Amino acid sequence: MHIALIGIGNMGKPMGRNMIKAGHSVTGYDLQAEAVDYIVKQGGKAAASAVEAARDADIIMTMLPTSDHVRDVYLGDGELLNQVPAGVLFMDSSTISSSVTRDLAEEVKKRGSKMIDAPVSGGTHGAEAATLTFMVGGDAEDLERARPILEAMGRNIVHAGANGAGQTAKICNNMLSGICMVGCVEALALGAANGLDPKVLSEIMRTSSGTNFALQQLNPYPGVMENVPASRGYTGGFRTEFQLKDMRLAVQLANEARTLATLGEIACNFFALHCDAGYAKHDYSSIMLMMAPHLKADMPDAD
Amino acid sequence: MHIALIGIGNMGKPMGRNMIKAGHSVTGYDLQAEAVDYIVKQGGKAAASAVEAARDADIIMTMLPTSDHVRDVYLGDGELLNQVPAGVLFMDSSTISSSVTRDLAEEVKKRGSKMIDAPVSGGTHGAEAATLTFMVGGDAEDLERARPILEAMGRNIVHAGANGAGQTAKICNNMLSGICMVGCVEALALGAANGLDPKVLSEIMRTSSGTNFALQQLNPYPGVMENVPASRGYTGGFRTEFQLKDMRLAVQLANEARTLATLGEIACNFFALHCDAGYAKHDYSSIMLMMAPHLKADMPDAD
Amino acid sequence: MHIALIGIGNMGKPMGRNMIKAGHSVTGYDLQAEAVDYIVKQGGKAAASAVEAARDADIIMTMLPTSDHVRDVYLGDGELLNQVPAGVLFMDSSTISSSVTRDLAEEVKKRGSKMIDAPVSGGTHGAEAATLTFMVGGDAEDLERARPILEAMGRNIVHAGANGAGQTAKICNNMLSGICMVGCVEALALGAANGLDPKVLSEIMRTSSGTNFALQQLNPYPGVMENVPASRGYTGGFRTEFQLKDMRLAVQLANEARTLATLGEIACNFFALHCDAGYAKHDYSSIMLMMAPHLKADMPDAD
Amino acid sequence: MHIALIGIGNMGKPMGRNMIKAGHSVTGYDLQAEAVDYIVKQGGKAAASAVEAARDADIIMTMLPTSDHVRDVYLGDGELLNQVPAGVLFMDSSTISSSVTRDLAEEVKKRGSKMIDAPVSGGTHGAEAATLTFMVGGDAEDLERARPILEAMGRNIVHAGANGAGQTAKICNNMLSGICMVGCVEALALGAANGLDPKVLSEIMRTSSGTNFALQQLNPYPGVMENVPASRGYTGGFRTEFQLKDMRLAVQLANEARTLATLGEIACNFFALHCDAGYAKHDYSSIMLMMAPHLKADMPDAD
Repeated sequence: MHIALIGIGNMGKPMGRNMIKAGHSVTGYDLQAEAVDYIVKQGGKAAASAVEAARDADIIMTMLPTSDHVRDVYLGDGELLNQVPAGVLFMDSSTISSSVTRDLAEEVKKRGSKMIDAPVSGGTHGAEAATLTFMVGGDAEDLERARPILEAMGRNIVHAGANGAGQTAKICNNMLSGICMVGCVEALALGAANGLDPKVLSEIMRTSSGTNFALQQLNPYPGVMENVPASRGYTGGFRTEFQLKDMRLAVQLANEARTLATLGEIACNFFALHCDAGYAKHDYSSIMLMMAPHLKADMPDAD
Repeated sequence: MHIALIGIGNMGKPMGRNMIKAGHSVTGYDLQAEAVDYIVKQGGKAAASAVEAARDADIIMTMLPTSDHVRDVYLGDGELLNQVPAGVLFMDSSTISSSVTRDLAEEVKKRGSKMIDAPVSGGTHGAEAATLTFMVGGDAEDLERARPILEAMGRNIVHAGANGAGQTAKICNNMLSGICMVGCVEALALGAANGLDPKVLSEIMRTSSGTNFALQQLNPYPGVMENVPASRGYTGGFRTEFQLKDMRLAVQLANEARTLATLGEIACNFFALHCDAGYAKHDYSSIMLMMAPHLKADMPDAD
Repeated sequence: MHIALIGIGNMGKPMGRNMIKAGHSVTGYDLQAEAVDYIVKQGGKAAASAVEAARDADIIMTMLPTSDHVRDVYLGDGELLNQVPAGVLFMDSSTISSSVTRDLAEEVKKRGSKMIDAPVSGGTHGAEAATLTFMVGGDAEDLERARPILEAMGRNIVHAGANGAGQTAKICNNMLSGICMVGCVEALALGAANGLDPKVLSEIMRTSSGTNFALQQLNPYPGVMENVPASRGYTGGFRTEFQLKDMRLAVQLANEARTLATLGEIACNFFALHCDAGYAKHDYSSIMLMMAPHLKADMPDAD
Repeated sequence: MHIALIGIGNMGKPMGRNMIKAGHSVTGYDLQAEAVDYIVKQGGKAAASAVEAARDADIIMTMLPTSDHVRDVYLGDGELLNQVPAGVLFMDSSTISSSVTRDLAEEVKKRGSKMIDAPVSGGTHGAEAATLTFMVGGDAEDLERARPILEAMGRNIVHAGANGAGQTAKICNNMLSGICMVGCVEALALGAANGLDPKVLSEIMRTSSGTNFALQQLNPYPGVMENVPASRGYTGGFRTEFQLKDMRLAVQLANEARTLATLGEIACNFFALHCDAGYAKHDYSSIMLMMAPHLKADMPDAD
């Protein structure tokens, strides 16, 4: 298939490479020339604009930082939506607002094309290993059209529901992972302050009703698990600023939907304070340092 | 071994039965005559007081509701601690304050005996199936003395650390499970209000970074999992009032230790409000009804 | 002056009456015929639509429940903004989103007219007694054009800043009053549970660093102050559902502006839970009943 | 009257001086020789221990940092309670736990003497100007016995109730002032981020339903009020670490009394985070910097 890949960052690069490896024809566009060069080196083609990349594409894929970026590519100066022939499939793998996604899908439909939202989880490791999870919103038949490239990039492809449902599922999940991480940090700080060995306590909770992803795969206490950010100065992993971005989308969604997300709001605010304190680029498990500041003394510096 | 079992409630009954089945001699005492009768029927002996039950016991086991009950049995009117010969082993499987436990262990030691705290998780099901987890605080050699009866009642026996560490581990775990449950409820309410099928969303989060015990074994949304309290009107399971009790111990511990447990405090307060609203006897996953009150309409009545 | 009054509810009625009393010519429009009749009985005129009311008006005043209502009157089916001659002054005294206000002011300006936002505080009592406070956003000269009618309805007229600033000021104030009310309730519940006389405690805090509007004029504990909602079953006063609406605007604004409003968010969620529990129509000081549920026993029923 | 003054710190010094000025005979004791010297220079006498200071005293007054200090003076090594003749009046002006106060009052009573708790508000300024507020717990007749020295040191003397009620009133008040301060900071940060002038917004809220002590006397936004800590780099005033100490007492009290103090708990945790971030010695209104970190750039250094 012919794929236009718009937005070639830390995630877009390996995702583009994996599509090319699977035999797809990928034309890339990004504001950074270096990013476009990367795609060319992998065997893809370069485009000088989003509109140019989209020419002759079967699927136009975007992988961008925010709602505004996506809207701008679709409806901004280049007027991408008005420049492509009807019948194309748009696929947005950015993590953005569910309501913006729904609005854009509507605009796409008016012009005779279709759109799916397909945000991912799994991080840069998952992108490189082609083991991402895709949470897809849109019509089932459109998911099927995209399946060949989804399978080139990921291992787990879930149909979450109608347009926007992929974004909503991702946002709900990341709000929950943020809450559980902060809760885990509170429990470990409480145990450690009472003399428990964080390793022993982690193992007890991992095998009891307190178990969650943080205990299973991303323990935030330095030295408890090997090969996790907490054991290398909270470097690598998923940046606090990205966790914060996703939790802000969750808070906004809860406010629009009038549901209560109290723990979500507070955890979100904690991540915001943590970014302000200088940890925006560290893994989000570094929120451990907020609740147990004495651990900061042992931290190496991060970028 | 000769065991004194003091406190024969919903947990104490199956625990006593399992010790008898494993060949131990159990003498039971409880304020309720009916509870003592139960132990006799299982093949144990009856005692008219804690002191009488403790006569000739190798291990004096308590399974009581609160810190005050345990302290009262040990140091109250009957003066149990002053009536038993030195060298006995006390084992408290109640869930109580870590600092009360430590104080009592000190008192026991002064009189030439030893104590371990060994609170359990696994609920009445685990007690009946002898699959409880014991979190043990105290000297390793004392855990070994108790191991024969621990293995008669449970499957997973963990040495958490010194006296009080068992209680602390249990309290940390239950605070965390309470936080994750409320977080899970917030995420499900948010997704459902945005049109997602709770089953689909639950499955997505269960296999992503939001995963936790609630999603894995105790989904709070009615109808998502079979054989969980949420699918039978939140009956059975672990009562909200007990979850609240454990979280209050956690908040108290955090206040004493000067660690921050913000999500823990708020989740605790939510469970308190939920009890006030009439859900004290329902399973704690019924906190779902607080965040999604429209679900109340479909609830059968619980006792 | 000729005034079009669009939206004649509990606030709009006395405000309209006071303008008429001050010698202004008021033409009223509302979906409820009874409301328009009221204005006619006071000496005003009736209109069958917003556009008809606006004909020949110097100032077109709206007093409506939500952002959507205001936008609908301005830009919806009747296209009010396109039906009036340039040079008119729009004044919106509804409490709505600051960003919606700013957008509408922009639309008005494009058509050669001007707009001010002028939300009020003081409630129905203030509206009847013509003692309202107006928080005005927009150009100073436009505030001056509206001053004659503002002075007919209120006592305190403050220029908060540019368009939207009136709404922002009102929203900030009401978020703060909501926080202080919940805080006051927590302090009174804490003192009362420890045996303090709520009257004595209220007086101590009113004259100390805990003082705030709730202690000064709206004590939430039944029987402490005379002539406040708390002393008549929380009837009259400012409905919890309206307080909730304003706090939701605040949470939304904080999310847009990326400022932290943690206490605001939690207080907002408490008011939402309180509405769910059946107190939407009671005065917002009835949040006292959430923190001290034993007081419910003494409550008379409210509508 | 003969007064023993035990604990001569920043508050104890001016309080001692004012009692001497009013004609009372004051014998001082403190671990710091310099502090005792101060009292001698003011015309008082020195003692080498609490017991020595208490000899022949009519009233034994303590002004100490924590519950533990007070208990230690009363019942620790020196055994003050066992060294004084029956019939003496103990007065504790420290801010400590209500339950510790009640326990100590009981111990005092057993020995034939009486005790009142009389914590103060008004800070070092109030102590120097003899304008403190005393919140008194204990029997009314005992308050009367102490009135001559209370009037030498303060202006406002309130009988809060039985033993412990003075402490409870103070703790409730300070929890509330902490909540209102954080709420005020959130509202000002929200308004400022939306372009409002903090002076204008403060004035609007000060005269509306958002009014509270922070807006009336201790505005936390730099430059809004003259002669407040916020306008001099948050120096002077009431230290964040003391506000934190009082709020921790409140959280503990709420946990003991089983009342909900959610906003209190969160505000308490914010003050703890703020102390960790280096603001323990700054005025508690510096919590403004947590919610509006860009203001830090303009801060002078504090001690």
